[in-house]
Amino acid sequence: MKTLSTTTIPRRNDETHKGDYGRILLIGGNANMGGAIMMAATACVYSGSGLITVATHPNNHAALHSRCPEAMVIDMNDTKTLTQHIESVDCILIGPGLGCDFKGNNAITFLLQNIQEHQTLIIDGDAITIFSKLKPQLPNCRIIFTPHQMEWQRLSGIEIADQTPERNLEAARELNATIVLKQHGTELYFEENTYKLSIGTPAMATGGMGDTLAGMITSFVGQFDNLEDAVTSATYIHSYIGEELSKTMYVVPPTSIINEIPRAMKQLEE
Amino acid sequence: MKTLSTTTIPRRNDETHKGDYGRILLIGGNANMGGAIMMAATACVYSGSGLITVATHPNNHAALHSRCPEAMVIDMNDTKTLTQHIESVDCILIGPGLGCDFKGNNAITFLLQNIQEHQTLIIDGDAITIFSKLKPQLPNCRIIFTPHQMEWQRLSGIEIADQTPERNLEAARELNATIVLKQHGTELYFEENTYKLSIGTPAMATGGMGDTLAGMITSFVGQFDNLEDAVTSATYIHSYIGEELSKTMYVVPPTSIINEIPRAMKQLEE
Amino acid sequence: MKTLSTTTIPRRNDETHKGDYGRILLIGGNANMGGAIMMAATACVYSGSGLITVATHPNNHAALHSRCPEAMVIDMNDTKTLTQHIESVDCILIGPGLGCDFKGNNAITFLLQNIQEHQTLIIDGDAITIFSKLKPQLPNCRIIFTPHQMEWQRLSGIEIADQTPERNLEAARELNATIVLKQHGTELYFEENTYKLSIGTPAMATGGMGDTLAGMITSFVGQFDNLEDAVTSATYIHSYIGEELSKTMYVVPPTSIINEIPRAMKQLEE
Amino acid sequence: MKTLSTTTIPRRNDETHKGDYGRILLIGGNANMGGAIMMAATACVYSGSGLITVATHPNNHAALHSRCPEAMVIDMNDTKTLTQHIESVDCILIGPGLGCDFKGNNAITFLLQNIQEHQTLIIDGDAITIFSKLKPQLPNCRIIFTPHQMEWQRLSGIEIADQTPERNLEAARELNATIVLKQHGTELYFEENTYKLSIGTPAMATGGMGDTLAGMITSFVGQFDNLEDAVTSATYIHSYIGEELSKTMYVVPPTSIINEIPRAMKQLEE
Repeated sequence: MKTLSTTTIPRRNDETHKGDYGRILLIGGNANMGGAIMMAATACVYSGSGLITVATHPNNHAALHSRCPEAMVIDMNDTKTLTQHIESVDCILIGPGLGCDFKGNNAITFLLQNIQEHQTLIIDGDAITIFSKLKPQLPNCRIIFTPHQMEWQRLSGIEIADQTPERNLEAARELNATIVLKQHGTELYFEENTYKLSIGTPAMATGGMGDTLAGMITSFVGQFDNLEDAVTSATYIHSYIGEELSKTMYVVPPTSIINEIPRAMKQLEE
Repeated sequence: MKTLSTTTIPRRNDETHKGDYGRILLIGGNANMGGAIMMAATACVYSGSGLITVATHPNNHAALHSRCPEAMVIDMNDTKTLTQHIESVDCILIGPGLGCDFKGNNAITFLLQNIQEHQTLIIDGDAITIFSKLKPQLPNCRIIFTPHQMEWQRLSGIEIADQTPERNLEAARELNATIVLKQHGTELYFEENTYKLSIGTPAMATGGMGDTLAGMITSFVGQFDNLEDAVTSATYIHSYIGEELSKTMYVVPPTSIINEIPRAMKQLEE
Repeated sequence: MKTLSTTTIPRRNDETHKGDYGRILLIGGNANMGGAIMMAATACVYSGSGLITVATHPNNHAALHSRCPEAMVIDMNDTKTLTQHIESVDCILIGPGLGCDFKGNNAITFLLQNIQEHQTLIIDGDAITIFSKLKPQLPNCRIIFTPHQMEWQRLSGIEIADQTPERNLEAARELNATIVLKQHGTELYFEENTYKLSIGTPAMATGGMGDTLAGMITSFVGQFDNLEDAVTSATYIHSYIGEELSKTMYVVPPTSIINEIPRAMKQLEE
Repeated sequence: MKTLSTTTIPRRNDETHKGDYGRILLIGGNANMGGAIMMAATACVYSGSGLITVATHPNNHAALHSRCPEAMVIDMNDTKTLTQHIESVDCILIGPGLGCDFKGNNAITFLLQNIQEHQTLIIDGDAITIFSKLKPQLPNCRIIFTPHQMEWQRLSGIEIADQTPERNLEAARELNATIVLKQHGTELYFEENTYKLSIGTPAMATGGMGDTLAGMITSFVGQFDNLEDAVTSATYIHSYIGEELSKTMYVVPPTSIINEIPRAMKQLEE
């Protein structure tokens, strides 16, 4: 297991436009937990994605635009429009604030029917819980799960106490997916390599922190060619900002992390 | 009566997650006074609570998420969902912007029927006025009232001119509750100890300041083991920030206090 | 005509609470022009008013709370609730974003039927235009009009080219009202004294600047004993902040002014 | 083709008021893409326009006011109110977030029927695409198109690879319109002169950047007498801010650009 203790961000080429930095679809936010997808969306914008659509409950549209006018919104339950967007994007994140009821189930089932091989799917939060229950056949695209330890237990069947690097890697390979296992010293499992994050702080132990990370990973994967570099960079920078802010803040609200993403990426630019 | 003139905040342990810092339910905010519960909720997030649900009038959901995406929202009048949340949290705050009409009464009656012994209940603002009228039997959990002087008169029956430390303590003991008596030189009454705050400023004499304090107390109680330490720390830091800001601000809007909580807690970390 | 070139703000006494700094009602903001009353309300909060209720079109409630949780909201067209609030406040501002249609007319007629002698009424924007048309009998309370030159022409009948200090003072006395005549070098007409503001900048020539001033005047009048001092101070500080900001900003958005009010008041504290 | 490598902003005269800095109407923002018109509107306010009305889907009103209380709002589909506003303004921007469906078509058709010779029309985003399809007769007013390369291909019929300065100028003259051709090294085509922008950065390759520029151009044209100076200045300052911010930010969110407009204009004031 390699130690993940630094990263570099690729320089942007001059002759590029917003379409070169990923078309993103974020699915989540029911009537009660809309804030989660708002944080994921804003993290995505501040990480550099050029074109972001958020499929969420209509109750969340006004607050989302109030926080993040850069994103477009659609009704999560409008399947016709949702299909159009699923077809036209590069990366899809599902999960933040999705809820675990039948509407959440439906969104996942619907997504799996429409996702295509060339796309990347990031599965976070409630969507992991639903996946663990439904156990649907995984699509043939690149898949990233971002569980915390209890969600990983549900998904992999490995109890928290037994979550060793060896067993985790084995489970990740069975799923044929990348795993970002969020914990004190977050671990990343790719097909070949595994990493353990050397930084992080309990000041980041607060609601919305995972939604923010999911938004960053989605944005980085949509933006950078190498999936492993994208996931490790996003995870590293998320904790890098948290550690920096925790020097002066007892707790680091996720919205504070988000605001710092563009500056942290610049500092770590190659 | 001890002088409350400093405090320290416990250091967080590395091996912790958001669930370790309290599950909080805030109940308040009718169709007219939603801002109160928004300030309480944001104060709660910035004080370090990991999981916060706000039960409030649906009119307030968009503005709350616009200010504070870290919190979840439910409809205050959806008793089924409210019951589920009452059952699953550690601390409950009721009162900010609740209103004194029958809906406010109903929320309190409903809460008292469902609250459990191991929980902590913080009663603020309109909820104190309703308690003073209804005089319901108090539940067997830990209870904190946060009245200003007129609310304390209503609750204790002691007229403002007669509110001496001795009589206040006696009344607090009869209620079997902690009292945070907000005034110039706020007083705190615990079972054994009483404190008088040595700091504070009339620049804090503005609407929403009490809602902010209620949110901080709720967060601290949910986060730290010792209730007395939690309440004294929250009360001290609230005025500490106010005093600091009042050096350059004639009036200190509550939202300015809230933004500074993470930095003030860090400064006072043990 | 005295030159208004400085001011001082009274120090707050320690033994005070939010109720000592004025109960304020702001009436304005139809379905299209809600931003005006939002800026007035926020200016009122940042000027130090403790208790502020905004009567406005329900469409504006979410955005108002999103910007300014410290204020309470009511539906401008709910006459029963509006009556209760008119009866219980010290100062009333009517006009920002009110609109000049029958609903605006109704609000003014209704207000005049319910206002009481001990209150202060500030009349701004569209409310001035409606007053100029309806020519209702003015109530027996203290009245302040805050017209720009065209509104003053409508109200006083004096054409802009003929608006000399002498004629303006005469018209102000006939109205038995204080006049804040907004122009390059704003003029103030009280019963005895008249003032001309020595500061100001064309960087402040932008929409919402008058709404901000109206909110400040209302707050100051509700907070300070002497009406003349309150109006001159509010007017001076509004331009003082504008001038300071214009050193680095080509145009000064009203929301930038508002944020600086507490600091400017502190600088000018006696 | 001249190199556009600096600009100056005219000083404001003391004896002016908000009416002197342009009456602006912005049309755009359907139910899904409201953020685009919010960014255009805020850019317009921060560029110095005094009176701004935004015609947009009612879903967007709350979020728009939450971000930008300085603007007024109307329902884009309320043709009676829209007509009144079209008649009374100096500059009209149509396009950001408009959508390409029949509602977008209707808005453009309706606008063309009502626009007057003395006005200036700025056509951006989806409105360019609709123009390219409908090929309506252009009105006799001053017209500015702000296409990116693909939109310019649609509008002019010139494929991206063939978009040389000569052919672009010829097409611009045929359209009898000013063209702001957004690309790495943005090009501007006026009746006589053509310019190429010497600054810019791929950190600006993000969604909403074009909406921000459209808002700035509209504001500058409404504010300054010389159209060519207005368009070149707005375009230059937009990239000037982006370049400055990109020194410390990997990606520059449009909202960051907007906040800096008043300071950048002051720095470049003549």
